[in-house]
Amino acid sequence: MKFTFVSLFPNLIEFYFQDSILSRARKQNLFKLAFINPRDFSENPYHKVDDYKIGGGAGLLMQVDPLYNALNFIQNKEDEPYFIFLTPSAKLFNQKDAKRLSKKKNIVFICGRYEGIDERVIEIFANEVFSIGDFILTGGELPALTLCDAILRNVDGVLGNTCSLEEESFENNLLEAPSFSKPFIFEKKGQSFYTPSEFLKGNHAKIASLKTTLAFCKTKFFRPDLFLEHKRKK
Amino acid sequence: MKFTFVSLFPNLIEFYFQDSILSRARKQNLFKLAFINPRDFSENPYHKVDDYKIGGGAGLLMQVDPLYNALNFIQNKEDEPYFIFLTPSAKLFNQKDAKRLSKKKNIVFICGRYEGIDERVIEIFANEVFSIGDFILTGGELPALTLCDAILRNVDGVLGNTCSLEEESFENNLLEAPSFSKPFIFEKKGQSFYTPSEFLKGNHAKIASLKTTLAFCKTKFFRPDLFLEHKRKK
Repeated sequence: MKFTFVSLFPNLIEFYFQDSILSRARKQNLFKLAFINPRDFSENPYHKVDDYKIGGGAGLLMQVDPLYNALNFIQNKEDEPYFIFLTPSAKLFNQKDAKRLSKKKNIVFICGRYEGIDERVIEIFANEVFSIGDFILTGGELPALTLCDAILRNVDGVLGNTCSLEEESFENNLLEAPSFSKPFIFEKKGQSFYTPSEFLKGNHAKIASLKTTLAFCKTKFFRPDLFLEHKRKK
Repeated sequence: MKFTFVSLFPNLIEFYFQDSILSRARKQNLFKLAFINPRDFSENPYHKVDDYKIGGGAGLLMQVDPLYNALNFIQNKEDEPYFIFLTPSAKLFNQKDAKRLSKKKNIVFICGRYEGIDERVIEIFANEVFSIGDFILTGGELPALTLCDAILRNVDGVLGNTCSLEEESFENNLLEAPSFSKPFIFEKKGQSFYTPSEFLKGNHAKIASLKTTLAFCKTKFFRPDLFLEHKRKK
């Protein structure tokens, strides 16, 4: 599997792969990385990549030309590149997308900067356009890393324990129940913090039932939207 | 303003502040960063920080002790630290939170790893708990960076042009309309890609009206949930 990041700031991206699980997976050749800077594809003598918006509006836009040239270069060089644009003005990325996209061989993330990307580049190249949430960031680099991380967890061999994938939040539109590890009773400053006693008794059917109840409560409280979805699909 | 990141992998975080807008803002002392590694607070001779879940379940959990010690250290040292935990099992972070939290002086992000954090640490310390979306990542580092970036954009002086903050997606529960920059007609491989002609004519009332229509269409198509919210609040 290969990920190409198209970004004006590739050094904000590559570091994320230099430690922990993803660093190990990269060393095992489970995936490859490439970085393309649209600035290198600007035909402007000053390597300009941004310009004012037509029709007015605050801030600068990533111009169509350098980005078109960069993506055209990738399209000619790579085998079936799958172009994913990151912008807040799109559908929300979720765990089902992460699983689905983990089957792709060649994903290209295009990271916007400034006030965004000239819409025509998106129309010409995009296979998909994703937002990660209802907030605005300084660029598409963190969203691209977020997609890449979520996708990679679903690639065979990246996580040591594939069972981990089954029990997690969102797998059935429920948030995960609270978890506890030793000590059973954590004592600090005269206070005791307990693990729910059911967890200690070793009756796995009862533990599973309590976890489901806790997952219900948590989802209903924090994410009524997900809870409705869970009930609808059941 | 100060951000403290509590993480087992601080080197996956600091890089993000070494280029672009946030690097400049950091040099101007608009914010400070600190990093705390719970591993340094483990009383275990091997600096262990993880353990099995009580009651069973796949994967390891971040133990209560080292994390408690790390957060207790911060609480004793810092002036009114505001503890924010990142976990998928929580309410969704949004642009209103970003604005609200930009008024805090001292934010501490706690980044989970493995299968998550012993719930008791969250109960003891959390001021807020956020998720950035319905997907699972290898750790809380990217969500913490995402919150930090979104919050910092709302801090005075970080963005050059504060007008940019006004026109953006989510400010009124609408996605942003498509944007275009020069050239007016982009020609490649015998095809022509146009800017909407209204944008070229300079009638600002008509441009604004077209942008609103386009924002409506985009929101209704990609985010029917947001569109309902927009209509409800109008």
